[in-house]
Amino acid sequence: MIIGVPGETVDGETRVPLTPSLAAELGDDGFDVCITAGAGERAGWSDDEYREVGCDVVPDRSTVFDRADVLFQVRGLGATPEDDADRYRDDQLVVGLLGPYSIDDELSTLAEQDVTAFALELVPRISRAQSMDAQSSMASIGGYKAAVMAAEALPKLFPMQMTAAGTVRPADVFVVGAGVAGLQAIATADRLGANVRAYDIRPEVKEEVESLGAEFVELDLETDDASDEEGHAREQDEEFYRKQREMMIDVVGDSDVVITTAAVPGRPSPELVTNEMLDGMADGSVVVDLAAAGGGNCEPTVADETVTYDGVTIFGPTNLPATVARTASRLYANNVTNFFRSLLDDDDTLTIDTTDEIVDATLLVHDGTVRNPHVDDEAADE
Amino acid sequence: MIIGVPGETVDGETRVPLTPSLAAELGDDGFDVCITAGAGERAGWSDDEYREVGCDVVPDRSTVFDRADVLFQVRGLGATPEDDADRYRDDQLVVGLLGPYSIDDELSTLAEQDVTAFALELVPRISRAQSMDAQSSMASIGGYKAAVMAAEALPKLFPMQMTAAGTVRPADVFVVGAGVAGLQAIATADRLGANVRAYDIRPEVKEEVESLGAEFVELDLETDDASDEEGHAREQDEEFYRKQREMMIDVVGDSDVVITTAAVPGRPSPELVTNEMLDGMADGSVVVDLAAAGGGNCEPTVADETVTYDGVTIFGPTNLPATVARTASRLYANNVTNFFRSLLDDDDTLTIDTTDEIVDATLLVHDGTVRNPHVDDEAADE
Repeated sequence: MIIGVPGETVDGETRVPLTPSLAAELGDDGFDVCITAGAGERAGWSDDEYREVGCDVVPDRSTVFDRADVLFQVRGLGATPEDDADRYRDDQLVVGLLGPYSIDDELSTLAEQDVTAFALELVPRISRAQSMDAQSSMASIGGYKAAVMAAEALPKLFPMQMTAAGTVRPADVFVVGAGVAGLQAIATADRLGANVRAYDIRPEVKEEVESLGAEFVELDLETDDASDEEGHAREQDEEFYRKQREMMIDVVGDSDVVITTAAVPGRPSPELVTNEMLDGMADGSVVVDLAAAGGGNCEPTVADETVTYDGVTIFGPTNLPATVARTASRLYANNVTNFFRSLLDDDDTLTIDTTDEIVDATLLVHDGTVRNPHVDDEAADE
Repeated sequence: MIIGVPGETVDGETRVPLTPSLAAELGDDGFDVCITAGAGERAGWSDDEYREVGCDVVPDRSTVFDRADVLFQVRGLGATPEDDADRYRDDQLVVGLLGPYSIDDELSTLAEQDVTAFALELVPRISRAQSMDAQSSMASIGGYKAAVMAAEALPKLFPMQMTAAGTVRPADVFVVGAGVAGLQAIATADRLGANVRAYDIRPEVKEEVESLGAEFVELDLETDDASDEEGHAREQDEEFYRKQREMMIDVVGDSDVVITTAAVPGRPSPELVTNEMLDGMADGSVVVDLAAAGGGNCEPTVADETVTYDGVTIFGPTNLPATVARTASRLYANNVTNFFRSLLDDDDTLTIDTTDEIVDATLLVHDGTVRNPHVDDEAADE
């Protein structure tokens, strides 16, 4: 069986979905690997390093598409601005970040070709699938890098300074959303010595936030007088959003750095930080909006641009993992390879068991059939 | 007495030598402050903030030079590419980073004008002078920022990752020179989770390096057979440099990041990291050379440029404190103000006591006399 790595076409994409050491392991297990020249270069792996472990390094992507039985990609299909669908060969199996939320008719073409395509964005958050969960491994890198990026841009030190030249307070960092990216941003900012606060609409993450050294910001909700009237639920909602807005105005205005991480796969990002809140921040403050791909959590955010609003610098990076190409590739390559291996039976034969929870969740097209209803389900679940 | 802040002219200089809060304190003590409009802007302090504490905000620098009895500068004289000397008024007193190692005839002009000029670069490293030691406070910021800059540029994470997607080793950071900047770079890289090693020709700093969590790299010198021959000292020198070179080849080649900090005031920086050593580093590795202003510790370094040598990115920043404008200004303003206050007697009258160790070390010109021999002494002491 030939595993192919065609290399990435998206501008700024530096990751490679297979490292030489993983290629060597696949080689030991009897798989052939075919990779386009230069595919690993931006992540720091030369063609020679792939050749040395037995890979067939070919001059162009089309050769990989022609030869491979299985394709490993970082970004394919809906995750690329330009459609790759026509290149896939009949009966080919594809694993990658395939942008399942923005695929339209490409899938019917692939169905006609009997292509099998797995979108790693849809790996379910169950323990058996953790080693394949590319969304989490990449979000973790994004959270780290967001904190480092903020430290690089802020005209203040993150740590407190107590020196003969005077004492300087630590920077105040506010992280909105305590998912994988948010927790890693919290941990990194805390490591650098900042004073970190975090907020999440899920109060149950409080303990985890506090275990990383940050303060969990809570809303002062008056729940006592909540049971006396009709229409109560709706009123509490209004009260909730009013309190949340007041808290955000206070905490954002007090912060040197705000890192927002509330991205919803396949949907526009909720606007959590308004211009009114940013008005309270001091000149030189920094926002890193990790939800920029979906339009951002912050009112002035522009995807892949750095904008300034009222003296505040707002970064809208959409692919921070690509700026940590080496580590991101290692982790992503592990995710892809683990996923691929989970499809093999004891004889190393590919077996697509659509009753398997992971296969069912991630499979976009197989056996001539487009299986996309679960894409909508997934979006609706968030 | 009028204290004047003319503002900075050097490209990229963002610091301001007086903050509104320190201006307020000086005002309380009966001093008048005159500042050029916009002088604090790049460090985040508006003209209004200075006005609110009683400063006289004037539209141009020449007004400040005309009015002030005492000038606070970040960079003046030899520390500016363009000569400011003609602007100083007769009998004026100037405190700042004045580039004492590269001043030529400006000082005679100033002597004729009876100007008194203090170069903060020359503050002696004695405990009484610590609160005025701008070289140390700025070096500390530079060391912090060098580590953050390296983390931002490195295609790897600094901290170890142990996740379901696999384990990734921490980045290896090597800091050359364990002075103020080096120690802060060590502390910051260690905080971010890197595996840090450091080297300094002074073995006595070992304990301090280790207390920050780093490993101190020692040379394996055979000192036992050192006493049997004539010309021994010279041979030991050769042995020392050979061992040092071998160690550097090994450790540099093993590192993801190298931060060099061996700057010698007024002299070319020693070349410690050669192209041969860089050849051993992996593609994507990062060098931050804090000695770039003196030509760099690293063979390919170019001051204020980012160069690539054999896949390694080499940063040659000469003014990192200016990239942390707010904190750097706070600390520098403390240094300048403390220095100024040390010149005041009980009646808040300026008294230049040339027998005082700090005055003697820093005074470039006073009472019609150029006092520059100590500049040469200082350079020779390093």
